[in-house]
Amino acid sequence: MEPAADPERPQHLPDEVDVLIVGAGPAGLAAFAQLAQFPGISTRLIERRAGRLEIGQADGLQARSIESFQAFGFAQRVIEESYRIYSMAFWRPDPERPTEIVRTRLVPDDPSGISEFPHLILNQARVLDYFAEFAFNSPARAVPDYGVEFVGLEVTGDAVLVTVRQNDQERVIRAKYVLGCDGARSQVREAIGRKLVGQAAMHAWGVMDVLANTDFPDFRTKCAIQSHDGRNILLIPREGGYLTRFYVDLGEVPKDDAGSVRRTPLVSIVEQANRILHPYRIEVQDVPWWSVYEVGHRLTDKFHDADESPKVFITGDACHTHSAKAGQGMNVSIQDGWNIAWKLGHVLDGRARPELLETYSAERQVVAQNLIAFDKEWSALMAMPADQMPDPAHLEDFYVKTFEFPAGFMTQYQPSMLTAQPTHQHLATGFPIGKRFKSALVHRVSDTTPVHLGHHARADGRWRIYVFADNGEKAHGLAAELTVQEAWFDLKIIYQQPFAEVQIQKVPAVFRPKQGRLQVTDWERIYATGDGHDIFAERGISRDGAIVVVRPDQYVANVLPLTAGDELTSFFAGIQV
Amino acid sequence: MEPAADPERPQHLPDEVDVLIVGAGPAGLAAFAQLAQFPGISTRLIERRAGRLEIGQADGLQARSIESFQAFGFAQRVIEESYRIYSMAFWRPDPERPTEIVRTRLVPDDPSGISEFPHLILNQARVLDYFAEFAFNSPARAVPDYGVEFVGLEVTGDAVLVTVRQNDQERVIRAKYVLGCDGARSQVREAIGRKLVGQAAMHAWGVMDVLANTDFPDFRTKCAIQSHDGRNILLIPREGGYLTRFYVDLGEVPKDDAGSVRRTPLVSIVEQANRILHPYRIEVQDVPWWSVYEVGHRLTDKFHDADESPKVFITGDACHTHSAKAGQGMNVSIQDGWNIAWKLGHVLDGRARPELLETYSAERQVVAQNLIAFDKEWSALMAMPADQMPDPAHLEDFYVKTFEFPAGFMTQYQPSMLTAQPTHQHLATGFPIGKRFKSALVHRVSDTTPVHLGHHARADGRWRIYVFADNGEKAHGLAAELTVQEAWFDLKIIYQQPFAEVQIQKVPAVFRPKQGRLQVTDWERIYATGDGHDIFAERGISRDGAIVVVRPDQYVANVLPLTAGDELTSFFAGIQV
Ligand SMILES: Cc1cc2nc3c(=O)[nH]c(=O)nc-3n(C[C@H](O)[C@H](O)[C@H](O)COP(=O)(O)OP(=O)(O)OC[C@H]3O[C@@H](n4cnc5c(N)ncnc54)[C@H](O)[C@@H]3O)c2cc1C
Ligand SMILES: Cc1cc2nc3c(=O)[nH]c(=O)nc-3n(C[C@H](O)[C@H](O)[C@H](O)COP(=O)(O)OP(=O)(O)OC[C@H]3O[C@@H](n4cnc5c(N)ncnc54)[C@H](O)[C@@H]3O)c2cc1C
Repeated sequence: MEPAADPERPQHLPDEVDVLIVGAGPAGLAAFAQLAQFPGISTRLIERRAGRLEIGQADGLQARSIESFQAFGFAQRVIEESYRIYSMAFWRPDPERPTEIVRTRLVPDDPSGISEFPHLILNQARVLDYFAEFAFNSPARAVPDYGVEFVGLEVTGDAVLVTVRQNDQERVIRAKYVLGCDGARSQVREAIGRKLVGQAAMHAWGVMDVLANTDFPDFRTKCAIQSHDGRNILLIPREGGYLTRFYVDLGEVPKDDAGSVRRTPLVSIVEQANRILHPYRIEVQDVPWWSVYEVGHRLTDKFHDADESPKVFITGDACHTHSAKAGQGMNVSIQDGWNIAWKLGHVLDGRARPELLETYSAERQVVAQNLIAFDKEWSALMAMPADQMPDPAHLEDFYVKTFEFPAGFMTQYQPSMLTAQPTHQHLATGFPIGKRFKSALVHRVSDTTPVHLGHHARADGRWRIYVFADNGEKAHGLAAELTVQEAWFDLKIIYQQPFAEVQIQKVPAVFRPKQGRLQVTDWERIYATGDGHDIFAERGISRDGAIVVVRPDQYVANVLPLTAGDELTSFFAGIQV
Repeated sequence: MEPAADPERPQHLPDEVDVLIVGAGPAGLAAFAQLAQFPGISTRLIERRAGRLEIGQADGLQARSIESFQAFGFAQRVIEESYRIYSMAFWRPDPERPTEIVRTRLVPDDPSGISEFPHLILNQARVLDYFAEFAFNSPARAVPDYGVEFVGLEVTGDAVLVTVRQNDQERVIRAKYVLGCDGARSQVREAIGRKLVGQAAMHAWGVMDVLANTDFPDFRTKCAIQSHDGRNILLIPREGGYLTRFYVDLGEVPKDDAGSVRRTPLVSIVEQANRILHPYRIEVQDVPWWSVYEVGHRLTDKFHDADESPKVFITGDACHTHSAKAGQGMNVSIQDGWNIAWKLGHVLDGRARPELLETYSAERQVVAQNLIAFDKEWSALMAMPADQMPDPAHLEDFYVKTFEFPAGFMTQYQPSMLTAQPTHQHLATGFPIGKRFKSALVHRVSDTTPVHLGHHARADGRWRIYVFADNGEKAHGLAAELTVQEAWFDLKIIYQQPFAEVQIQKVPAVFRPKQGRLQVTDWERIYATGDGHDIFAERGISRDGAIVVVRPDQYVANVLPLTAGDELTSFFAGIQV
């Protein structure tokens, strides 16, 4: 049963909107999906392409993205259709016979169990489809406007006038805010005068999805392959069981290349691949997609138009470009889009002060800086001939050591109006303030079932307040003070005793709210430990209890003692209107 | 992207079909879904209702059903939307104050981890939707014919002439086989002269799905509640977080009742519930669905029309009826439907001898007998006043002790043309011949990923042959003899060494077949142990290796030594044409 379209939503792009998103890539669609949860805000997404993306582009999905998909309700479906990266193999020249490669190491991709979610490979087009589906199933019943091109914009006092082209006709749309999610050649970025700066040099990759027969044994395992002459391949199997993607290094692009690398024919890429794979060979049967992908390490200094009252924001590849080697492009872009989207939602909805929007660039520009630094190091290492490495296992060691980064979990936002000082961090050491909330298993008291506490956090734009109860009555004392607005906050209590010992009818009423038209009890706010699951031990939560505050995009904003009802109030007073 | 309908499939019910299924309940739709995998066979399903089931009926899904859904590709989606039964609570009269109930025990629902899948509660309508979706996405692009009623049938020499009514018009359809999946009042059963026999007495239940506020603490946990006067409630929470189903015992139906119990009003059911719950109360806010469900323990002696060359088969409630207490109705019906469907597929497809069809009744009638025996015992126990029990914990003990039965795993088919004698059972003690293949984690060698071996068995109508390799060369010797037809058999090899030690290029070619138009290698037939997963240890497989043969419906058919290539051939010769 498809839900019906919203009769109140104009079918055609209206003249005035609250938010205009430009570009239906991962950043734009993630933002669009989040904003669709705010039915009171009119959001439109324009995309130059005539319809959905069908094939190609990025494919790496780090665990942090799958966690995010969980909030958007499609993690399981993505897991089922993806290729899972469980190991990574390293191949290098055989010291005895340097023109032949040998496997030097096979390392686990997630040695430390950094997330309950896997590291996956899936066509970007599928991910975009899922976000679009979520947007359509949301209260706003939002559908992208395809075939509409951004031409230019002008920021006036209280609005942005955006010129768009559709069916060869130009028109002006008045938006309160504009999100430029229009990729590496972003015209929104140009329109606000921001520049991608960084290395002048571009690096070229022949990227091909191949169906092949081969005697290379790791054709279905992710590999970094280095040949004796310093050339390399990043090999990444694809979903479905047969296809494998090759990123074949085509080297640095000379300044005077004038696009000639982009004309590299497919046969040369295959030839180059076979040279690197020697003594193994691939016999290519079909290449459903390939491209030459040129990219440099570049970054803009700010992700918005003006430090005061910004009205235009840029995200994803529009702000930062880097190699495909660390598999970051789609992932970081999604987080950019989600970050700015809920903030716009809160400001336009009247929940938060407009200053909240300034935290977007402050938070995400640092992430992009780190990403580029990491990617530079990783790319340089991959390109370094084996005999120049400090030690033979240097590359593999770097991969294993830095694993948290590419999985997407190194992001830690610094103190700001959104992120508290770590004054009370010791009360919940496993929930570092500024990092994403790492889920753990708890038992729902009402039905005794084990569930992941973090998986209840859906992309509904709400803050989460987790009350980890003490053994005594402090948690209940706090409850007596708490009044929360259901639409803005999701409040839960977690007891440290086993589920069978919690007397549910004695839990304070604020954790058993009555919901909906019929005012029936919501039984799903009350959790406990049990059957080998103890979130208090696993996440270093004090037996005196703690309040853990989590943002709508899953980052920990604050940790407080149970007696700090006032501090909790003043924390939100710093954000809300 | 919805797949397009098959242009070759007639939109309207044709005059001749291979298989005509009557009734779109769980049995009929499971059979329809399986047969849709055989595009060469024309199968139609007629259903009296004008469209899909929308609400009500059964809701219990045992782990065996979820395993089956895995094969049909929708287990994960069902898990995500269902209520999960993790514990069961028992409430009985307080010995001190017998008019008040107290919780005497809370027991885990699956104490032994009998399956990797959970025990769930979900509206029957959703399950039917999923089977219908699978049928439509199958090669046959099958869609049920709603609004068509079965009127009668006549078995001629080589066909069944079925009279149906549609839009008040009768017509005759010629079918090679007919499946009567038309429920407890089956007209197909009547037409072939089979009778439901058993207890004359019917037992009545007031069944209601309620939204309520209550001080009863286990409103969201499955409970058996017994009051001092021997009345009882089976309480089962529903998916979605709010709704709970009550089965309120209305007692034995007197012979001369003449339908009066069926006229029991909702208020009396609620009143009765509150009497049993005393001192707790439910305040009902809404009852989206309720019914009075009368049922007796009844069974037909045979599930087909004739012992020789049967052409008409009956399934599910058409063959067996019993209480809802053990939560079996939907589950057993699904297995009935699946069992007969793949067999019909094989016979009509020319893969198997028609005698195969006789195994259906032989296998499933015994299952139904056992079900009814179990349900009688369980129902009698639930109705027995506490002071008549042999000991106070008798009911709970029975529940815990017999857990394997209601989970759906007690079924063990006896030796037949399909089920070998347990001559070599000692080679794989964890795969009892005749029981369902219990999955375990293995590692796929090509990509090192841990996967459930059993989850690769899809409902594609194929036999599975698992070759568990010895340390030496017997498995490879067997491989040299094996030639299998891809469309009929799914052949896999599992090595006992860790995945990193298997040299994939040395694995015999039969386990690395080339597939499809492009003839590219299928890398996903080769498995191993590793990272703490050792299927050899977990399933008692001999280090000398074994061949395990599994039927299209997941039951183990044979266990053989690796040297028994001939026996394997003669086993299949007994089935195939
Ligand atoms: C051709 C190509 C191949 C790539 N290959 C790889 C790869 O192999 N591996 C890898 O990791 N990453 C690859 N990437 C990068 C990866 O896809 C990006 O990092 C990721 O998509 C960034 O997401 P985004 O939302 O910021 O931008 P994008 O995904 O680039 O989306 C921008 C969208 O904006 C639209 N748009 C642009 N200008 C306008 C306009 N004026 N008006 C309206 N709409 C506009 C575009 O049509 C596009 O849909 C590739 C990118 C491209 C473009
Ligand atoms: C009203 C009702 C309430 C129930 N409540 C519960 C419950 O609370 N708990 C529980 O565990 N079980 C319950 N059951 C039983 C449970 O639903 C069955 O065990 C299960 O559905 C059996 O599946 P089936 O496929 O054999 O038959 P059914 O699900 O009964 O399906 C039979 C189908 O055949 C169709 N049909 C019948 N006659 C004809 C005809 N002449 N021509 C064409 N189509 C025809 C019917 O419309 C129906 O769709 C209930 C059943 C019914 C009918």
